[in-house]
Amino acid sequence: MKPEFHFADRAIKLTSSAIREILKVTEKKEIISFAGGLPSPEGFPIEIVKDAFNKVLTENGKVALQYGTTEGYTPLRQWIADEMNASGSEINIDQILIVSGSQQALDLLGKILINEGDKILVENPSYLGALQSFGLYQPKYIPVPTDDGGLIPEHIDKETASNARFLYALPNFQNPTGRTLSLERRKELVKLMANLNIPIIEDDPYGELRYKGTPQPSLLSLSKETGGTVIRLGTFSKVLAPGLRLGYVIAPVPIIRKLVQAKQASDLHTPTLTQMAVYEVIKDGFLQKHLPNVRDIYRTQVQCMLKALEKEFPAGIQWTKPEGGMFLWITLPKHIDSTKLLEKAIVRNIAFVTGKPFFIAPSPEENCTMRLSFATVPEEKIVQGISLLGQLIKENL
Amino acid sequence: MKPEFHFADRAIKLTSSAIREILKVTEKKEIISFAGGLPSPEGFPIEIVKDAFNKVLTENGKVALQYGTTEGYTPLRQWIADEMNASGSEINIDQILIVSGSQQALDLLGKILINEGDKILVENPSYLGALQSFGLYQPKYIPVPTDDGGLIPEHIDKETASNARFLYALPNFQNPTGRTLSLERRKELVKLMANLNIPIIEDDPYGELRYKGTPQPSLLSLSKETGGTVIRLGTFSKVLAPGLRLGYVIAPVPIIRKLVQAKQASDLHTPTLTQMAVYEVIKDGFLQKHLPNVRDIYRTQVQCMLKALEKEFPAGIQWTKPEGGMFLWITLPKHIDSTKLLEKAIVRNIAFVTGKPFFIAPSPEENCTMRLSFATVPEEKIVQGISLLGQLIKENL
Repeated sequence: MKPEFHFADRAIKLTSSAIREILKVTEKKEIISFAGGLPSPEGFPIEIVKDAFNKVLTENGKVALQYGTTEGYTPLRQWIADEMNASGSEINIDQILIVSGSQQALDLLGKILINEGDKILVENPSYLGALQSFGLYQPKYIPVPTDDGGLIPEHIDKETASNARFLYALPNFQNPTGRTLSLERRKELVKLMANLNIPIIEDDPYGELRYKGTPQPSLLSLSKETGGTVIRLGTFSKVLAPGLRLGYVIAPVPIIRKLVQAKQASDLHTPTLTQMAVYEVIKDGFLQKHLPNVRDIYRTQVQCMLKALEKEFPAGIQWTKPEGGMFLWITLPKHIDSTKLLEKAIVRNIAFVTGKPFFIAPSPEENCTMRLSFATVPEEKIVQGISLLGQLIKENL
Repeated sequence: MKPEFHFADRAIKLTSSAIREILKVTEKKEIISFAGGLPSPEGFPIEIVKDAFNKVLTENGKVALQYGTTEGYTPLRQWIADEMNASGSEINIDQILIVSGSQQALDLLGKILINEGDKILVENPSYLGALQSFGLYQPKYIPVPTDDGGLIPEHIDKETASNARFLYALPNFQNPTGRTLSLERRKELVKLMANLNIPIIEDDPYGELRYKGTPQPSLLSLSKETGGTVIRLGTFSKVLAPGLRLGYVIAPVPIIRKLVQAKQASDLHTPTLTQMAVYEVIKDGFLQKHLPNVRDIYRTQVQCMLKALEKEFPAGIQWTKPEGGMFLWITLPKHIDSTKLLEKAIVRNIAFVTGKPFFIAPSPEENCTMRLSFATVPEEKIVQGISLLGQLIKENL
């Protein structure tokens, strides 16, 4: 007889991400996959990273391999504070916690902020990984409506929102839609949340991957004037490499203190060696030289995809035109179910991610949307894949 | 007006580890600190680790820096399975999850197994980091009494224990006491828990640091005969280096699946680069050559401390004589309060950790015990420190 295991209530609802399941199908070499969420490995500065690990282990091996403080490596935290302050914020090192990828920040924030049944405000659709992290702590999701300009602050109902633990937003090149919040809406949002006394979690993994248009101020920097609380999440996954698992949280000191305690119980600290090596990589301005190259890769690929869409997709289909990041969002006519389309696409060796898993509440678009990533697909494959996908859509119109 | 933050109930009780607070005091150079829980950096194979990072980044940089699977790097998981099977277990790779230090395993297990108010069985005293991890999920601790032979299976009351989610134990050179569970008690425990249908979490960070006596079979290997569930936690922190933050869980497949989902939501995966580099270090039998050196360091230091204790401590004081690991446990006469003693010790530039924080339930020994670590203290400092401490105790007898 096999034993039965009793899992905690919070774990019973836990499932593997729908996207991870799709990704397993799409690992076959012959598939052209727009499904992935991986950054382009062409942008990884492998030699620089190697030299940095070498240097740190040569000069400071005993420290790099020893336990470290939960807060993180001090020079790295100071670097982050300096960077933020150079772009209009006013923060100090005590407001910074280093985490094991910004996914960990989402888990820690859920841990310290969400009681079962608490309301949290989330863009509809939103980043699936955040929904998974928060979901473990069993909140009640309040959807914030979105349009092509991102979330719509004036559609936030004050009554419904009151007492929400926080609002979670990706203002730049959102995952899954690629949309960016306008300056006007940013100001409106920060002001509204300050008035309602609801903290904002500003998740910004893609902000540095802007390849077009004008950078917008962070919600954190805007909150200097309006007051209110903005908790900002950043990561080195998209500007250096995701396999390092290195991110950070910027928040008011009382929140950082509580996060530090939660992180201590979660994994003690983020690897010392990784933190020291990344600091070694970036400390003398490397990213200023490196990021234009990464942006070039993404710009070339998104332009290629946009051009192919224009050429191959029939009338009546809409798509976002992202100014940065890795994703583009397609809206099909309502009668085309993107889940069924995916089944047919896989038969023809094309993959994408359906829109549905990203929605936290019913939406007229939940069944007819799809997310395409151009980040890891070479140009000729983009052209070929979009052509095949366009053909398939035409057959199903 | 500063904003007030509303933390979740589980986070309100969360505090920084009492030990971390003591450690802050003891960072001064002039202090001889027996308080730390750090392994000796003399045992870190820095050059070997450096070569491994170099090799992995040179040969396989794009994979090492990319996102990886949540389960972990396959060759590393296979190596762990092979090692376990070589020492009497029968497990396969699907039963292994790589984690970001075994502290993360404790958090993930709490997450998937503990509902608020659930009973869990814990040695009294036990590892503080585990109490912090589990504590977040608000269990009801049921203390398992211990003596010099470790936990006492026959003192586990079946009625009280029934429906407990798990029993948590450190069978080898326990933190904080340095005690090891005898073969007889191991067998008794595994059988009893199988009968009660209560899984055992076997946390074994120090098992490979045995410098004396005969290795005992793991609870996992013993469960082959009795049945029942043993979840085993291992780590590379003490055999290689803790700053890498690399550990693993061995468990039945349904539990691993749930842990994978929880880990996905917690940090996606443990750094690919670290996993590949550690595999590179250990794959050809490095640990067999390396571990004797590490054991030599600890053996020399524990012998030095035991000799000093014999010489300097007055009659009526008891201490454990660990056969491995990093800690030694002192029991003072009941009228000496170790917390007050610590205050006086710090004035004389000596530090240790008081016993109290490790107890989950009242014990006649909670106020008169202390944990000493010899791992990072050079011999002459051990002699000097124990002499000063002995003098202080004599003055307070």
